[in-house]
Parts: sequence; structure tokens; C-alpha cells
Amino acid sequence: FAPHCVFLSQIINNYLERTQGEAVDKASSSVMHFRDSKRKVDYVLAYHYRNRLARHLPGAGSPKPTRGSASLALVSNGGERPGSPGPEVIELCPLDALEEEKRLQREEYERNLVEAGLEIEKDPENKSQGLSFVRIHAPWQVLSREAEILKIKMPTKKVYEITEEGGILKKLNEIWCKLTKPLQPQVPQQENTNMKSLSYPFSREKIYLFNIKDKDTFFDNATRSRILLYQEWARYGVFYKFQPIDLIRKYFGEKIGLYFAWLGLYTEFLIPSSVVGITVFLYGCITIESDIPSKEMCDQRNAFTMCPLCDKFCDYWNLSSACATARASHLFDNPATVFFSIFMAVWATMFLEQWKRLQMRLSYSWDLAGLEEEEEHPRPEYEMKLLQKKLKHKNITDEEKLTWSDRMPGYATNFGLILFMIMLTFSAVFGVIVYRITTAAALSFSTKETTRSNARVTVTATAVIINLVVILILDEIYEAVAKWLTEIEVPKTEKTFEERLILKAFLLKFVNSYAPIFYVAFFKGRFVGRPGHYVYVFDGYRMEECAPGGCLMELCIQLSIIMLGKQLIQNNLFEIGIPKLKKLFRKLKDERTETKETDTNQSKDPQQWDLDYSLEPFTGLTPEYMEMIIQFGFVTLFVASFPLAPLFALLNNIIEVRLDAKKFVAELRRPDTVRAKDIGIWYNILSGIGKFSVIINAFVIAVTSDFIPRLMYQYAYSQNGTMHGFINHTLSYFNVSHLKAGTQPENSPFAHDVLFCRFKDYREPPWSQNQYEFSKQYWAVLSARLAFVILFQNLVMFLSVLVDWMIPDIPKDISEQIKREKVMLVDFFLKEEHEKRKLIESFIARDQQKHKIGTKGDRIRAASFSQVNRSPRGSFTSFSSQHTEV
Amino acid sequence: FAPHCVFLSQIINNYLERTQGEAVDKASSSVMHFRDSKRKVDYVLAYHYRNRLARHLPGAGSPKPTRGSASLALVSNGGERPGSPGPEVIELCPLDALEEEKRLQREEYERNLVEAGLEIEKDPENKSQGLSFVRIHAPWQVLSREAEILKIKMPTKKVYEITEEGGILKKLNEIWCKLTKPLQPQVPQQENTNMKSLSYPFSREKIYLFNIKDKDTFFDNATRSRILLYQEWARYGVFYKFQPIDLIRKYFGEKIGLYFAWLGLYTEFLIPSSVVGITVFLYGCITIESDIPSKEMCDQRNAFTMCPLCDKFCDYWNLSSACATARASHLFDNPATVFFSIFMAVWATMFLEQWKRLQMRLSYSWDLAGLEEEEEHPRPEYEMKLLQKKLKHKNITDEEKLTWSDRMPGYATNFGLILFMIMLTFSAVFGVIVYRITTAAALSFSTKETTRSNARVTVTATAVIINLVVILILDEIYEAVAKWLTEIEVPKTEKTFEERLILKAFLLKFVNSYAPIFYVAFFKGRFVGRPGHYVYVFDGYRMEECAPGGCLMELCIQLSIIMLGKQLIQNNLFEIGIPKLKKLFRKLKDERTETKETDTNQSKDPQQWDLDYSLEPFTGLTPEYMEMIIQFGFVTLFVASFPLAPLFALLNNIIEVRLDAKKFVAELRRPDTVRAKDIGIWYNILSGIGKFSVIINAFVIAVTSDFIPRLMYQYAYSQNGTMHGFINHTLSYFNVSHLKAGTQPENSPFAHDVLFCRFKDYREPPWSQNQYEFSKQYWAVLSARLAFVILFQNLVMFLSVLVDWMIPDIPKDISEQIKREKVMLVDFFLKEEHEKRKLIESFIARDQQKHKIGTKGDRIRAASFSQVNRSPRGSFTSFSSQHTEV
Repeated sequence: FAPHCVFLSQIINNYLERTQGEAVDKASSSVMHFRDSKRKVDYVLAYHYRNRLARHLPGAGSPKPTRGSASLALVSNGGERPGSPGPEVIELCPLDALEEEKRLQREEYERNLVEAGLEIEKDPENKSQGLSFVRIHAPWQVLSREAEILKIKMPTKKVYEITEEGGILKKLNEIWCKLTKPLQPQVPQQENTNMKSLSYPFSREKIYLFNIKDKDTFFDNATRSRILLYQEWARYGVFYKFQPIDLIRKYFGEKIGLYFAWLGLYTEFLIPSSVVGITVFLYGCITIESDIPSKEMCDQRNAFTMCPLCDKFCDYWNLSSACATARASHLFDNPATVFFSIFMAVWATMFLEQWKRLQMRLSYSWDLAGLEEEEEHPRPEYEMKLLQKKLKHKNITDEEKLTWSDRMPGYATNFGLILFMIMLTFSAVFGVIVYRITTAAALSFSTKETTRSNARVTVTATAVIINLVVILILDEIYEAVAKWLTEIEVPKTEKTFEERLILKAFLLKFVNSYAPIFYVAFFKGRFVGRPGHYVYVFDGYRMEECAPGGCLMELCIQLSIIMLGKQLIQNNLFEIGIPKLKKLFRKLKDERTETKETDTNQSKDPQQWDLDYSLEPFTGLTPEYMEMIIQFGFVTLFVASFPLAPLFALLNNIIEVRLDAKKFVAELRRPDTVRAKDIGIWYNILSGIGKFSVIINAFVIAVTSDFIPRLMYQYAYSQNGTMHGFINHTLSYFNVSHLKAGTQPENSPFAHDVLFCRFKDYREPPWSQNQYEFSKQYWAVLSARLAFVILFQNLVMFLSVLVDWMIPDIPKDISEQIKREKVMLVDFFLKEEHEKRKLIESFIARDQQKHKIGTKGDRIRAASFSQVNRSPRGSFTSFSSQHTEV
Repeated sequence: FAPHCVFLSQIINNYLERTQGEAVDKASSSVMHFRDSKRKVDYVLAYHYRNRLARHLPGAGSPKPTRGSASLALVSNGGERPGSPGPEVIELCPLDALEEEKRLQREEYERNLVEAGLEIEKDPENKSQGLSFVRIHAPWQVLSREAEILKIKMPTKKVYEITEEGGILKKLNEIWCKLTKPLQPQVPQQENTNMKSLSYPFSREKIYLFNIKDKDTFFDNATRSRILLYQEWARYGVFYKFQPIDLIRKYFGEKIGLYFAWLGLYTEFLIPSSVVGITVFLYGCITIESDIPSKEMCDQRNAFTMCPLCDKFCDYWNLSSACATARASHLFDNPATVFFSIFMAVWATMFLEQWKRLQMRLSYSWDLAGLEEEEEHPRPEYEMKLLQKKLKHKNITDEEKLTWSDRMPGYATNFGLILFMIMLTFSAVFGVIVYRITTAAALSFSTKETTRSNARVTVTATAVIINLVVILILDEIYEAVAKWLTEIEVPKTEKTFEERLILKAFLLKFVNSYAPIFYVAFFKGRFVGRPGHYVYVFDGYRMEECAPGGCLMELCIQLSIIMLGKQLIQNNLFEIGIPKLKKLFRKLKDERTETKETDTNQSKDPQQWDLDYSLEPFTGLTPEYMEMIIQFGFVTLFVASFPLAPLFALLNNIIEVRLDAKKFVAELRRPDTVRAKDIGIWYNILSGIGKFSVIINAFVIAVTSDFIPRLMYQYAYSQNGTMHGFINHTLSYFNVSHLKAGTQPENSPFAHDVLFCRFKDYREPPWSQNQYEFSKQYWAVLSARLAFVILFQNLVMFLSVLVDWMIPDIPKDISEQIKREKVMLVDFFLKEEHEKRKLIESFIARDQQKHKIGTKGDRIRAASFSQVNRSPRGSFTSFSSQHTEV
């Protein structure tokens, strides 16, 4: 080990560098063995050494501790950390000394590994600086011991059939599989060796094949290696479970597996909802001709003279000019929509229930059923903070954790900044509103006829695009802010860190994505005031109104543009483009650095780990989940106004699944496997969105759409029980002479003919006693709207509870299988025990024959036996080995 | 075994008789040993033999199979039933043959027990007929083997401290304990020997003492024996966990323990809610003088002439005569009530959360954490039905379960009968309404002045009492019906049987208890019509109105009478009285039978099991839970109208806890212990009630109380922002001349002076265009009411979710303790393993020295070792025993 200078930008990383393990690969091909070609390479640690001028390599620049390897050291030492992060590290010492210390720490770490029973192999040191790999092999004893400690389930010799889930879901699965088959592209067979090794974690779990059909592409690539390796597979499958993975790090395979399983189920569930959504849309298309209100609206004979839409420059206008929007809005605003929202609320509950079942099924087949939460080690940042605190107060180290007062500033910053960010979002939304109002006003001044007629379209389109851009920019900012805020909070463990980060990021992104939509759905056009008494912002600009077709149409446009734009630009463009760019960039950098410094020896013999190292590091599943959850929100929250949302989501996801898969396989380094029993906090967020969507949909139908006023008219006010006259009923009268001075239309050709103009509201007519007050109809309709909300919400909640209750969380076949397994285990054990007892009896007989005096000794042995019997069952291994040796 | 004739009334019992085990007792006193005074009696089976003329003994007449003992046979045979219920049993054979068969079956059963490794002892057969006991002792091997199979946690030698929960709850506990101490009666030291033995299951779990303070009375009785036995206790506590209880039957201790823990927590939680309830009530008392509406109502100067309350015979009346009720209703109908309902909804969530935590804590300290659901055996009734089906269809025994079509009739009957029962309840409620209407009418005909003036009081009081009686009677009927219906359904296992029974019984009892209350809260007085256009039932009887003080007052009266009456009569009177009566009856019967038939030898030497046998058999916890859950409903559902409900519940429960404890100790036989991880379906019912209560309370406040109209008046209609004029505002005008002919007051002294009478409703005045239609105010107030419901419901639901999310299900100290325990276990194991490895190495060294040629043999041994290593960990016991013998 020649002394090398290591440049480290952060002090804390100094201590952590030695634990920087890149989970590069594991395989059974001959390349992946120690030099004796026998011992398998189970884990590879990599570290850099550069001279003091070497730049920070991207991707390797901020080395994160591999939690697994840290915990290995901890476990092997029985809870004691290998060399605590002593305060001496805090001071910056000369680089050489630093480097020396690093080397010592690294050596200590390696010593600890060896002590724990692992075998390590280092690269021959034939170069002065650069990358160095330490390969680790875990021998049998270590594996079995740790497997025992971690209570990992292992297969018995008894084999039993796993009955696959029959019924509809499987059929659906098959159909789905067939349907998507032609859509599957043939991924070019690039980086084949890499593929081969990566297929392991997937092929290991047999059941996995049945669950994620979309990953077929994986196995196409891996086919060749699978046939190579078919004989070894079964043994390897068994062996794998004993790998030191369980000891060095938690499994990651399950976590990624769960994500793909979840994504698969979600995509599957989108199919029925898309179908129903299309049906609802088609129903709207078909019934458009028989819809009386839109027919009445388009009828030129009904000359409804509407009040001008802006002061001074706008003229009175005829309602029939809004005919097109009215017809279009019927496509989304029809009675079938109500049914669809109920359907979607139940759908969301069903999805969550089904996911619980699938999760149960997976955890059964992946043997995660008994997986207990492992004690997590505090994050280094947390320990650092604790250390700083101790140093500051010079107290005896009595306080072992950060108190409330230590955390207060962090929490306060968090609260303040999150509030500020939400305010920022709101002001962005408000800014866009102001833009819309002013631009619309400016355009209406325009002398050009074409500009004025297209004003609304221009304004709406540009405003939505501005909204979208703001959302995209703020999304990126919020991600960084959320991360920074969570770091300020100094959560104790990696798990809490992740959870809090997710919550914050979700909150910010949720508000960001939905604020403009909420505005359009519930606020736009509600604070307009009334003719003669308009509400003005910024002195002279009237609050904006909804288009004559109703706010639902605008909501629909807003939703579709934001949803599609977000998906196309953010998810796909960013997701494909940016990693590619990053990779290119890194490659260039690496090449420049390495051609300068590395001797040719290295490049001649590119080991697997060298290849893998050039890939992009894995940054976690959070962005993937986040994207999907926000999409889930689009699908459920406003489904009443946009029945096609599930369809768009489905189309996106079909691409998304394969994009993600490709990314994981080809673009990223093999991520650390982390065992996970469930999808964690995402489930809570999903179920929260599901609950929230019920009330949102209730309000969209009741308040935004015309559903309730129509019903009310038909059953309470209509003369003959039909919808004829509905439009007239919803329009109030306004006496033109009551318009304030200066707001009258200036260049109106028929200003003299107009006595009354109409506006959409339920208000008392000018000839009533309480001129322009809300009429009785207004209150009656409002009551009906609110009653509908109550009814809808409670009905849907009841249905959800019912569905939740009817579908058991554990699939019946799985629970039966678990029971059967248990019975078989008992059988197996009883049989074995019976044989053993016979054996004992024969032993006793022989014993008594041999030493007839040994009665006293026997008793002592019996006593020790009963003592031993009380010890925890963990002692099993030791006893059995003793037995074989005696 | 002399042949005795056994009289059996039911064929099915014939087969089951042999499994009839009464869990009489277990103890460590010398009486409870086998005749060799060494082996402990762990379980006692009892069976009767009588001559053919002997009558059926009550209590023993319908012998039910003890599940535990049946499962013993099953487990010991590895899943095979000891002698299937052959079809030959179905035919009635001569009694002697029957008896012979019984004897054979009994002998087979006993043989199976012996085969399973148990040791049995029978009574010396010195009498020809009567009771016979079979005592069972489970030796060490059996215990340890089965403990291993059932994965029962056992204490290691490592001892660690359990840090008790500190903080507020403990303080509360202590205060609570002190508060109730003077209330604890000194239970007379009767049946001392019985007490002594019974206290075991309670003293076994140390933590139990900390949880159920109210059971201190137990230990008072058991003190003497405890000091006798103190030395043995610790050992016994350890030993107990290995008792064959785990094998013969599931634990019951936990189930009863959970019930008392739940009851204790519930009672504790009632304290704060009682306090807040009393505060709210006091607030009402204090503010009564400053309440403007009731003052206005009582003011004699405001002469509101109200429309007559009945046709013809009633006169116009002055509103100030209803002054007293108005004032009284203010006690319950004030703004604090709104706060109280929100508080109670959050309270319910808190309670459920806290219960989850306590449950977690208990399952940790009782070592139930890893308790997996055991496979349950089908109920005999289910197997019987299956057998019948097989015989009927003569099919090959391919179908192993009842299909949907087999169950259809059962389900249909269920559905039909439950519907019928609910209808019955409704008709009972309707009957009482009719009674009230007609009696009120009849009394108003009365010539006596006093009768007429007290009419309302008389009618209300008698009606409520009738309601109460109906509820009590129907409750008993419904219990029987629910049981019968569940039996018709033929559920597969005992657990599903219990769950379905509970659900049915709960549904029926819930409807029964609350139907009249729902009627008063939401329907009474809402279908009266209006003056001149009243709604009539049965031709001539007007629908009843609420008292002038509002329906809330009546709801309050109804609630308090039903709640108190139900608690006093049903829970306490029935619970104490009926068992006592039953016991007396049984004793008399028994004595009569036994003095005739039994020889004196028996009575001379009354064994423990003879004494215990005379106690009442245990019938399950269902009635206890049911009673409490219905009470929980009273406390949460209508708390907005009756803030004192928690107080009454608290008072009842303080008595209830000790009544139940006493019953379990002194009145009942020692119940079978059943292990239970949680309170099962009761939790779901509780949380269901909690959710339901939110919407109910929202409606009570919005619709039943005057809260919203007051707010509306104050902020929208009042001239000066005060409540002055509210009463006038709520009363509509009616033109007396519009009264239908024949309905005018007959003998009115001031009929000529009255032009307009007033009635409580928001309707257009007679001089309006739309005479007597609902006014704009009506719709506005309705909108406000509904908006309040939406707001209240969503706010409370949000708070509940927040509370649910904020309070982790697993208490922090427990989760930390679990983690610590795990770490210690790992440490312990590692240390042990290290030593063993050294031992092995020394063995190998010695081995090699001894036989230097044995290299080949070593390899074989190593192979067998690795094989052994793969076998399930269950083989532990056998290996260790082998080790001791070699």
C-alpha cells in the first residue's frame, strides 16, 4: 500500500470513504472468482486514490456510505463501531497525514472484515494511484451463522407445489401480457456480460417471473447466460440466500422488485378504468345531440343577450356564440361522470386492497413474511451533530440523543421554508392569473379584429404553458429544497430521513402540481361579483370569469395540458435525456483523467467491476414513485372532470415501465439490495390521496359541474319535467341602466335596443324588491349541492370500507399455503423426532451396557441438558455441529 | 370399566362426548398431584355416566367439545383425527351398544393421549355410575417438543430490566388507582382453596399486575397462598409456559386478560371525557341566564300566540309557557356542545390508538408478539354437514368443502330473518309512536284538568319505559336468533363462527338499542306538515311534534333513560341475579340427583375438581364486550345531545369491572385459556362506531340542535349582531282563517282575538305571494346546516387521521425494548457460538490424534452435518438430547 493522497471535499466523507462500497456485481462466471478460481466474489469495495490536483469525479465525488457494509462491521463487532469518528478528524490535517489516517482506517476496516470471518482479496498494487478494488468472499461458516442470526428462512429438503393464483386476475394477466407483447421493442443486446449477471436477482425468485410480465425483456437478454448456467441455478438459488448480502447490507432486490410489482399492478388497474373512462366519454359523444341545454344554447332563435365580458371595450353578446364550448363541455359534464367518479373512488380502494394482497403474496414467495425490522444505525450526520453538541457543552456523555431544543431551529426552518414555498407556489398561480387578466384586457384593446376574437384562446394557451413551465421549474427547486430541509432536520436513521424527505417533497410537489388546477376547479369565476358590482383587482381589472361553457371545460383543458405536458417533458424527456447526458459527460471526464494517469495494464484487462464502475450510480426509487403518485393524483382527484385521465396515464405507464427497467439494467450501476417488506410511506400517501379524492370529486360534481342545477331544474322547477328552459332558468336579468358610469360598452351597435342583459347566476331580477340579491333558487340549489356532497362522500366512504372489509388482506390461497407449510413442517419434524428418539433409546441401551456405574454422571448431563434447553433456539447450529464431531 | 348406560339426547353429542373436557383446575398444591404425589395434574377431563333413567343434568346436559382437547388429539396424531365420525354413529343403536361404543371411543382417545406422550390417571372405579375424572400429566419431553413446534417464546437465562412506561399515563394510572381504592369492597374470603388455584393464570404474567388495577381484589384473596407459594412462583411462572395447555388447548388467559385490559383502558379514558362533559354541562348552567333566546321566550311581554298543538281540543297557547323546557334545553344545546363533539370524536380515535399501543405492549410483555395464527380445525357441525352431503350425493370424496350452493339456503335464511328482525324493531318503534299519538289524543279528550296538563309528561314517560322494555326483551330474543342463524350458516371454524355471531348479534342489538333514539333525533317533528296542512296517520291523528323546547331536549331524555335503564337492569341486575339463580337451581338439581345415586364415599373426600365442577360453566366474553360496545355507542354517537353520557358510563364501569372480575373468579368454572393476540372483530366494530359517530354528531348539531339557525341569525339576519329577535325570526305566521274546517279549536276563550298564530318553521307569511312555501331563509339555513355537516365531518376526519398518524402504533419504549432484546440475543448467541467453535476445534484435534486414518470418514460426517444444517430449526431439541446421551 503505497501512500496516496486522497482529496476529500467534506470532512465527514473522510471518515466514510473507507465504507464506500459500490455494489458492482456478483456472478458465477469464472471472471468473478478470486485468483484461486474457487472462492466466489460476493462483494466488491472500491476506493479512489488521486494526487492532490486530481479533480472530483462526478458520481464518485460525493461518496455515500454503503449502509450495508457499515452494518457488517457493526454486526461483526457486536454493536461496536470500528473506530469511532474521533474529534481528531474534524481538524484538517496536512493531506499526507490525512491520507495516512485513511489508510489506517481502511486497514482497520479490512481487519474487522477478516475478523468477522470474511476472506478478502486486494488488487496487486502495480500502479501508484487510481481506482482500487477489494473483493470479498464470505465462507460457508460466516454465511450460516449470520443467516441464523438474521433469521433468514431457508428451504427445507421438503418440496411442495406452489399453486398459482387462478381465476380472473391470472386471465387478465395473460391477456395483458399478450396485448403488450407486440409493443415490446427488442432491446439491442448491448453490454451483454452486464445483463447476464444482473438477471440473477430476478431469476432467483421464481415467482417474480409471474408477477412482472413487463420485464420479459430482461430475460431475453439473459437467455444465453441462463442456459449456460441452468445446472448451477438451483444450487445457486439456495446458495444465494446465504450470501453475505444479508450480512453486509440489506437486500435491495426486494425494494426494486416491490416498485416494479406496484407499477405493474397500477398499470393493470389502469386498464379497466381507461375502458370505463372511454365509455363515459363516448356516452357523452353519443348523447350530445339529445342534450337539451346545449341544443337550446346553440339555438339561434333563443336570443339571450348577455352582459359584456369586460368594461367599456366589450360588447353585449349572444349566448349562441358559445355554442361550441357548451357542446364540448357536455362530453365531460354528463350524468355518466357521476357514476365514473364513484367507480374511480371504489377503484382506488380496490387498487390499494389488491396491492396489499399482492404485497402479501410477494412477501410470502420471497420469504419476507418473517422479516423483522432491523435496528438501524444512526446516520453519520446525526452522530456528527451529537458529537458537536457534546463538544460544545463539555458535558458528560449522558445525553445520548438530540433533544427537542436542539432540533427546534431545524424544525422552525423547515416549517418556515415549507410555508414560504407554498406561498411561492400560490403567488406563481396568482401571477399567472394576473397575466391572464391583464393580457386579456390588453388584447381587447387591440384594434385588430383577429387578435380580439382569438384573445381567449391565446390567453388560455399561453397561461397554461406558463403554468406548466413554472411547475416544472419549481419541481426541480422543491426537490433540492426538500433534501436540504431534511438534512437540516438531522433525522436519526436513514429510514426516517427517507420518510421525511418523501413527505416534504410530496407536499411541495403536490401543491405545486395541483394549485392551478384547484384554482380553476373551485375558485375561478366565483368572485366575479355581478354586473354593476364587479370585483376588481389592481384597480380596473375585473376578476376573470369562466368561459361560457362552464368552468368544467376549462378545468378539463388545464388538467389535460398539465398532465400530458408533465408526463412528456418531465418524466420521459428528463428521464431519458439527462442520464444519457450525464453519462456522456462522466465518460469524457473519466477518459481524460484516466488516459493521463493510468498505465496500459489496466485497460488491457478490463475486469467486470471496471466496466460496471463506469455506469451511473443509483439514486434511489423516490423520483420514480413520486412521478407515479402525482400521476395517481391526476387519475383520481379530478377524474370527474376528465374521464380520459386514466387512459393517458395508462399510455404513459406502458412506456414508463420499460424505460425504468432499461434504466435499471443498462444505465445504472447495480444498486445496493435493500430488503423491504412493503412500499413504506408511499402506501400511506396513496391511501391519503384516495381519501382526499372522494371529497374533491364530490365538490367537482356538486360545485363545478352543472349536474345539480340540472337535476334541480328537472325535478323542482321545470313545468313539464323536461330540461326545456333550463338555460333561461340559470340566467339572471340585469337592468342595463344600472351599469356604473364608464363601464358601459362604448362602441356597441345595439346598445340602444338592449334594456336587460343576462348573466349566469341565481339572483333576484331588477324588478324584485331585493334587487340582485341571491334568489331562493340560489339557496335551494346550494342546499342540493351540499346535500349531494354529503351523500356522495358518505356513500363512497361506505363503499370503500365495504370493499376494504370484503377483500381480505391476505389472499386465501396464500394463507392456506402458509398453513399447509406449517403443518408439513410439523409433520416433517415429528417424523424426524421419532427417529431420533429411537436412536437415543438405542444409545442409552448401549451406554448402560458399557458403563453400568455411570448413573450419577448421567444425572449431571441431564441437568446440563435442561439448562441448555432453556437457551434461545439460536444455539441450534452449535449443537448440531458438536453432535457430528463427537 | 364397568359398562354403563349413557343417555344422550343428540346423536352428534354421542360422538363428541368423549372429547368433553371441563377445564376444572390446575394448581401446585399437593391435592393436585397424581397419586404418586410427584406428577402434577395439568388437565382434567370429566365425563358422566348415568343409568338410562337418569335425567339430564343442567350444565352438563349439552356437553360441548373442548376445542383444546380435540386439537390435542389432532396434533399428537399429526393431523389425523382419532377415529373419524363414522356413519354408523348416525343410526341409533341399543343403548348398551351405544355405551360400549362410547367406551371404546373414550379408550381410543385415551390411547391417543398416551401415544402422544402424556400420562393419564383415572379414578379408581369404586362406584357404578356418576362422574368420572381423568387427570392428565404432561411430562417434560412432550412439553418441550410441543413448545418447540408451536414456537412458544421462552425466557432465556439473560435477564434485563423492563422499563415501565413513564409519563402522564402512568401518573393517571396511579391517580386512578388511588381514587378507586376506597371504592374497592373487601370481598369475603369465601371458597379460599378455589381462589388460590385460580389466581395462577393472573399472577403468572407479571405485567398483568400493572395493567388491571381493579383486580387487586383477586390478590387479596390469594395473598395467603401466594406467601405459601412465593418460592415456587418464579419457577412456576417459567414452568407454566411449558404446560400442556399450549398443546391441549389454546391459552385463554390472554383473551380474558385482553378484555380486562381493554375495559380498564376504556374506563380510564372515560375520566377525561366525563370531566369535559361535566364542564360543558356546567357551562350551560352558568350561561343560562345570559342566553337571550330563552330569556326572550320566557318573557311574558313577548306574546307569541302559537297555533294549537292538536285539532279541535287544543287551544292557542302562549310560547312563554314552554319557558322551562327552553331553559333546560340550553343546558345541552349550547356552543360548547359543538366543541365537545369534536373533542369526543378525537377522543374515540385517541382511545383506539391508545388501545393499539396497549395491545402491542401487552403482546410484548406476554410474549405474544410472534404468535401466529394456528390452523383451526373445522367445527364438528361443519364436518357433520359435509358428511351428510357426501352420503347424500354418494360422490367420491372429492369435494372437501361446502360449496356456495350448499350454503345458499343458510345465507338466504340469514338475510331474510335479519331483515325481518330489523323490521320488527322498526315496527316496535312505530308502535310506540302510535301509542304516544293515540294516548296523547285520548288524554286531551279528558275532562280532568290535571290529566290534560300532565298529558305530555305521562305520555313521554310511559312511552320511554315501553321502549326500554321492548329493547330489553328483543335483546334477549336477538341473542338467541343470532346464535341460531349462525349455526344455520355452518361456518367452518370456531373463529368464523364467533365472528359471524358477533356481527349478527351486534347488528341486531345496535338497531334495537338505537332505533328509537334515531327516530327522536332525526325524524320526530319533521313530518308534521304545517298548520292547515298537517300530516295525519291513521286518519285523524296528527304526527307528533317535538316539545316546544326543541327535539334535542327530548333526545336527551330518551337517551338518558334508555342508557341508564339498560345499564341498570340488563347489565347489573341480569348479570348478578341470573347467574345466582342458575347456580342455585343447578345445585338443587345436582343435590337431588346425587344424594339418590352416589355413595357416601364420594362426598367424604371432595377433591378440588369436584368442587370446581359445581360452578357455572363459562359462556364466553361476547356478552361482556357487547354490553360495553353498546355503551361506547351511547357515549360517542349522540354525545352532542347528552354531554353527561360519559359520566354515566364511567360510573357504570367502575361497578362493572369488579362485577365481571368477581364473576370470573367465584361464579364461573375456570375457563379454557385461549391465546389471543387482539380483541378481534370488536376492534373493527369499535372503529366503525367511531367513524359513524362523526357523521351522526354532525347531523345532531346541524339538524337537531338550534346551533346553526342561531349563528345564521346572529351574523346574517340580526339587525344589530345580537341574538335579540331570534325567537320571532324562527316563527312563521299563519292565518287562522286558513285552518281547515273542523280543526279549529273548539272551546277557545280567545279564538276571536286571534288573527294570526305562529308556528316554528321558516315559511312565507300568509301575505306573501307564495303563501306558506319554504322561505328563502329556510334554504339559506339549510345550506348552512349542510355546509356545517361537511365542514365538521371533514375536519374531524382530518383530525382523526392526524392523531392516528401522530401516535405510532407501537409504543417507542416497546419497540426499543424489542430491538434491545434482539441485540442481546445476538450477543448472547455469538458468545456461545464462539465457545462452541473452540470446543469443536479441540474435538477435531483430539479426533485427529486418535484416528489419524479417519480423513475419509470425517468428510462424510461433514456432509451429513451440512445436510443436517439445512433441516428446519425445529430439530433442535432432538439434537441436543442426542448430544447429552452420547
